[in-house]
Amino acid sequence: MGIRRDADGGQRRPRLGHTGFLDCVPLFWGLARTTALLDVELVADTPDHLAQRLLAGDLDIAAVPAVTYLRHSESLLALPGIAAGSDGPMMSSVLVSSVGLDELHGGAVALAPAGPTSRRLARLLLEQRYGVVARYVSGSSDPASVLRGADAAVLFGNAALDAAVYRERTSAGPRVYDLAGLWRDWTGLPFVFAVWAVRREFAGCRPDAVAAAHRGLLAARDLARAENSELAVRTARWEPFDATTLERYFGRALDYSFGPRQVAGLAEFARRTEHGAPALASGEWFPG
Amino acid sequence: MGIRRDADGGQRRPRLGHTGFLDCVPLFWGLARTTALLDVELVADTPDHLAQRLLAGDLDIAAVPAVTYLRHSESLLALPGIAAGSDGPMMSSVLVSSVGLDELHGGAVALAPAGPTSRRLARLLLEQRYGVVARYVSGSSDPASVLRGADAAVLFGNAALDAAVYRERTSAGPRVYDLAGLWRDWTGLPFVFAVWAVRREFAGCRPDAVAAAHRGLLAARDLARAENSELAVRTARWEPFDATTLERYFGRALDYSFGPRQVAGLAEFARRTEHGAPALASGEWFPG
Repeated sequence: MGIRRDADGGQRRPRLGHTGFLDCVPLFWGLARTTALLDVELVADTPDHLAQRLLAGDLDIAAVPAVTYLRHSESLLALPGIAAGSDGPMMSSVLVSSVGLDELHGGAVALAPAGPTSRRLARLLLEQRYGVVARYVSGSSDPASVLRGADAAVLFGNAALDAAVYRERTSAGPRVYDLAGLWRDWTGLPFVFAVWAVRREFAGCRPDAVAAAHRGLLAARDLARAENSELAVRTARWEPFDATTLERYFGRALDYSFGPRQVAGLAEFARRTEHGAPALASGEWFPG
Repeated sequence: MGIRRDADGGQRRPRLGHTGFLDCVPLFWGLARTTALLDVELVADTPDHLAQRLLAGDLDIAAVPAVTYLRHSESLLALPGIAAGSDGPMMSSVLVSSVGLDELHGGAVALAPAGPTSRRLARLLLEQRYGVVARYVSGSSDPASVLRGADAAVLFGNAALDAAVYRERTSAGPRVYDLAGLWRDWTGLPFVFAVWAVRREFAGCRPDAVAAAHRGLLAARDLARAENSELAVRTARWEPFDATTLERYFGRALDYSFGPRQVAGLAEFARRTEHGAPALASGEWFPG
């Protein structure tokens, strides 16, 4: 017995991975409001795990760290038009330091567990822009203890945002260097921390599903931007930041675009970190 | 360092458990469209696991099988106004049988792994209404094989809906008895398969959060009902049923209400299965 028809050729919803962190909240809002959420199986995990699961075929599309995308461009394609980064200070990816950057030479820099692109960017800036040779050690993501045993620390996500806002409001505590801000000063370009990547194999088999998910992400982003004030107020109920901070973070610090300037920023990062950038050639884009 | 303020008294979003099965899709649609989804941490799991996790304090509010709620009313409260059941045939909880019910005496009845309330209701009906003493054996949820080695089988969810629609359209295959339909014929009352339960401890500590989640669920249900045709078309893209079947299932077979008639139906089920029903006293309701 059984009368079930094949839905979409018997195919399941694309499995879409996001961080569930604050930086993905606007897209979640947009995916919910537009009901695009009904057409995906949404999975939340850390950036590192999302990348591993995407490469292992356990996800179809995911927000993955830029360094992972550059390293695995033979099996991944970036969706055009949408990424996560900033064109100037981003607030949620910082180096906190008890001394000035030029005094860090020979010191110890703690690296937060999540955020491989932030870690790589911090090393790139310290080594190539400031000529700082440092020891890199594993760090926690707890701002209160991260400088015990280290002269500086790379922080990511809420811990970074917390440190940035605190320093800005009080001028107290350790110095806070915004990594994307330093990159912008150095190169004149935006910085891309994460791209939305699809497995090439999945894009080949299910191009319509990828195109639909891509359209859904773009529409979600646009709606979240249009409703940013309401989103900030709603999110502030549950997150440890006030609506003013969130409105600024979502609306101005974070940049979800991935156009020619962002592509140039990512290519420049690839060049300076000696990653090849084959998947950045226009013919290699997923044809959205 | 650290400037993070306490959000909602430093409290997190309520953790809300749903099955992720077809019977929860309308609420998911409504929670997304209304953005109430932003104010909960949504977790999908099987009905049995949701109940275990709620009782263990790993969830705060969850759709749990009626039998679990009745068994644990000392630690759980049902949210008023919303449940999952039907006032007549529900389509997704059935007994399939190769013989008539009165011929099942002495036979073997396979029980699907999920759906403890369906299992209990089937036994109750067979024993008390039809005087059938049968052997109950573990069954699969695969309609194609569930009758191998058994004379009848309790099916739940998609497998049940599949069997019901197939039988209706073709008059072929095993007979299909709708459990809620039989209950309605027997008692004149609706049947409640699952309630939305909150841990009493959580309701005591966080009444505002429970009231907000409750309002969110009610609004989600009402919006889903108003947009049932669109919801059915969208869901049919991915589920193995056509839009006509889904529109009927979501809009007419499933009943999300939990008013006096549904409470009476649940109390009657508790009485006939010798569960006490202390949490059904009106003073025991969570004051929504």
